[in-house]
Amino acid sequence: MPAEKTLEDLFHDTLKDIYFAEKKILVALPKMAKAAHSDELRAAFEKHYEETEGQVERLEQVFEMIEKPARGKTCPAILGLVEEGQEVMKEFKKSDAHDAGLLSGAQAVEHYEISRYGTLIAWAEQLGMADAAELLQQTLDEEKKTDATLTKLAESSLNQMAA
Amino acid sequence: MPAEKTLEDLFHDTLKDIYFAEKKILVALPKMAKAAHSDELRAAFEKHYEETEGQVERLEQVFEMIEKPARGKTCPAILGLVEEGQEVMKEFKKSDAHDAGLLSGAQAVEHYEISRYGTLIAWAEQLGMADAAELLQQTLDEEKKTDATLTKLAESSLNQMAA
Repeated sequence: MPAEKTLEDLFHDTLKDIYFAEKKILVALPKMAKAAHSDELRAAFEKHYEETEGQVERLEQVFEMIEKPARGKTCPAILGLVEEGQEVMKEFKKSDAHDAGLLSGAQAVEHYEISRYGTLIAWAEQLGMADAAELLQQTLDEEKKTDATLTKLAESSLNQMAA
Repeated sequence: MPAEKTLEDLFHDTLKDIYFAEKKILVALPKMAKAAHSDELRAAFEKHYEETEGQVERLEQVFEMIEKPARGKTCPAILGLVEEGQEVMKEFKKSDAHDAGLLSGAQAVEHYEISRYGTLIAWAEQLGMADAAELLQQTLDEEKKTDATLTKLAESSLNQMAA
């Protein structure tokens, strides 16, 4: 009989899930930046690419803290989210609404991450890993800020452009 | 040459996407309620099932407003999110951490919906559809409340139970 799974296992599984997701996002963001019609949206994606590199490094630090190799685990959610973004890019390629759709897909990804990091922080605290919680909180703050930046960009220009 | 796609098309596509997602959630929630170890978590899922039925009806009203048939469009994101939830239910079935994992998956779904409804409301307003925006806002408020209820439940009991 395998040992019963614990909250430590759940934390580790979810860490692998978001590590896989962040790596996929690093692949998706340059394509999204290239596809963006608006310079502002492109700049937002480029900035977030750099942030995401730092977020991957933080995750690697958390893997070290729990003495596990930094390794991803297929995350079907991010694969679905990225696929949806690609559909919009393809179907609205020449449309004035393209960037509004692309931005909304990026926000869906941000919300996935906000949810996952929120969960990981709560579990890290429960497990007495204050240092890990603090690192993950830095990333959560960045994700929330990125989401807010995208909302502002949508409201200030892209939605009008689209209409 | 097909006519250039517009923000109306993007709104319609995204409406179909979330309609498909809500229907999938209606299938997933009873399974999640049945799998929950905790009575409180089960009750939260049962309550959200009823809310989701109302949310589907609101979406059908919005389809009427734009004079389109209420029809879903495959939403890879929700398929991925539901698949992740099923993985946790299976892998942590007999674990004290089961409910913490199940709840976190439900929150990832809530965040997807929060993102989609936020986007749809902004576009409805941009398109001058104040009535649709108001209906969608009712659903967004419910989703945010559900997410907050789940966070409270995680913090007040499930994460301790899991540890």
